[in-house]
Amino acid sequence: MLPFARVTIIGLGLIGSSIARAVQAEMPTVRITGHDADPQVRERARELGFCDDVTDTAGASVVDADLVILCVPVGAMGTVGAEIAADLPADAIVSDVGSSKASVLAALAGTLPGATIIPAHPVAGTENSGPDAGFSSLFKGRWCIVTPPEDADATAVQRVAEFWRRLGADVETMDPKHHDLVLAVTSHLPHLIAYTIVGTASDMEEVTQSEVIKFSAGGFRDFTRIAASDPTMWRDVFLNNKDAVLEMLQRFSEDLTALQRAIRWGDGDTLFDLFTRTRAVRRSIIEQGQDDAAPDFGRTH
Amino acid sequence: MLPFARVTIIGLGLIGSSIARAVQAEMPTVRITGHDADPQVRERARELGFCDDVTDTAGASVVDADLVILCVPVGAMGTVGAEIAADLPADAIVSDVGSSKASVLAALAGTLPGATIIPAHPVAGTENSGPDAGFSSLFKGRWCIVTPPEDADATAVQRVAEFWRRLGADVETMDPKHHDLVLAVTSHLPHLIAYTIVGTASDMEEVTQSEVIKFSAGGFRDFTRIAASDPTMWRDVFLNNKDAVLEMLQRFSEDLTALQRAIRWGDGDTLFDLFTRTRAVRRSIIEQGQDDAAPDFGRTH
Repeated sequence: MLPFARVTIIGLGLIGSSIARAVQAEMPTVRITGHDADPQVRERARELGFCDDVTDTAGASVVDADLVILCVPVGAMGTVGAEIAADLPADAIVSDVGSSKASVLAALAGTLPGATIIPAHPVAGTENSGPDAGFSSLFKGRWCIVTPPEDADATAVQRVAEFWRRLGADVETMDPKHHDLVLAVTSHLPHLIAYTIVGTASDMEEVTQSEVIKFSAGGFRDFTRIAASDPTMWRDVFLNNKDAVLEMLQRFSEDLTALQRAIRWGDGDTLFDLFTRTRAVRRSIIEQGQDDAAPDFGRTH
Repeated sequence: MLPFARVTIIGLGLIGSSIARAVQAEMPTVRITGHDADPQVRERARELGFCDDVTDTAGASVVDADLVILCVPVGAMGTVGAEIAADLPADAIVSDVGSSKASVLAALAGTLPGATIIPAHPVAGTENSGPDAGFSSLFKGRWCIVTPPEDADATAVQRVAEFWRRLGADVETMDPKHHDLVLAVTSHLPHLIAYTIVGTASDMEEVTQSEVIKFSAGGFRDFTRIAASDPTMWRDVFLNNKDAVLEMLQRFSEDLTALQRAIRWGDGDTLFDLFTRTRAVRRSIIEQGQDDAAPDFGRTH
């Protein structure tokens, strides 16, 4: 039995349009309604045809939904919550795909009092944005973390989990605050570091931008991929998971300072020990199917 | 006309064995002699057959060479220079593939007085190491930077450049000190940052190692690839390009502190401006053929 019959997706970018395409592929009888605040995105979504219907207002998109998924930057969740409050059916479940969960839960609980809110976060994506960037297999073999509030209805949680399993994801349930800490390490800090180093490299006086680009295959290019991610989405993540990100950043800076000191004093053993330890982490990620085993991510040579 | 007839490769790991394979593929009449300090690597190289001959000593490998390429960690260049000094033919050219150039030039000039030394650095590689990891197309479409000393013989420089072009590389000539600055930005700092963040994530108390691995697709896994690179090679790079690396690290730390401050004070505009700017760098790298245009490096989904 399908967990939901009528799904509404608000925000039709990379993630929203991938969910729509995955639902079409995996649960073809489910009716999909979409909305996006940007009229051009709505027009493009209609052309691409991954929704049965695209509405011009957020309210109109939810009127007969049994699942509403908000796929907007985490800083916009409260606004969208307020926009749909009047039209949301009493038995609908509201979920989202945001990368920080405590702040989203608070924003939605504040604007949708009494609604069944089951936040979720599919840990998947690419550096591209917009309705053209989505594809139906994005969530296959990836994790989706469901972060229900403490008093959540168990059946509602199960239905959201089943929805994600149908799209090919493995599902884990987690406390919102713990999610925010885990993702600060595995996603937010890496993005912040990548954005920073690409900025640092762009601002050099002695090395030209053209040299940075030409010789980027020495490692730098790996960082430019995630530093090409959506600026609005990521601004909101850092502002909405501030405490955990600042805590991780502090630890990272301490560790970096220790390596800086080892380089300055010619302490090769400290460097060698760390570089040996980090190799094992890569191996585990590949063994657990979370990355390609092919060298260089399988890039063509 | 071939630039060289008898090439000796000392160090038969990822880069050395890739050169041997590429020479076999592109200049099949060239005789290849190999040597490696590790007897197990020599045995494996004989099995794999990418050299015409594998010698048990470094000296024996160079006796009739017209090009000798040292493919050993940059901290070992001086030692290998001393090992081959007595047997090196007077008209042979000595080159290398090290990732720092001023220190290599000094080490080889010190142990091989009077020899023709034309250092080079192919900006290519994968995270894998050893004679099994090499492949003949590794240098295709990548840059090779040749860093001759000031008084270098122009014909010798041309022959080394032509050798790399035959293997499919584009060649650029650069002053060794400038090379070290450019690579500190495009390769050494990225590796140091990647090693650090993988270490930081492994040392968390509140987040388990298993969680870090499971949810690594949020960005972290990108960093684990280069943090799986050869520990000895990278220890030596940081110790031998100390000044440039420390300078870049200082700049990076300042930029990171500025972002940390922006997050703490909720300054979304500063974050948004940087995140928009870094997107353009990725675009240029793809336009110039230095990375795959496919989303997510073309990883399979």
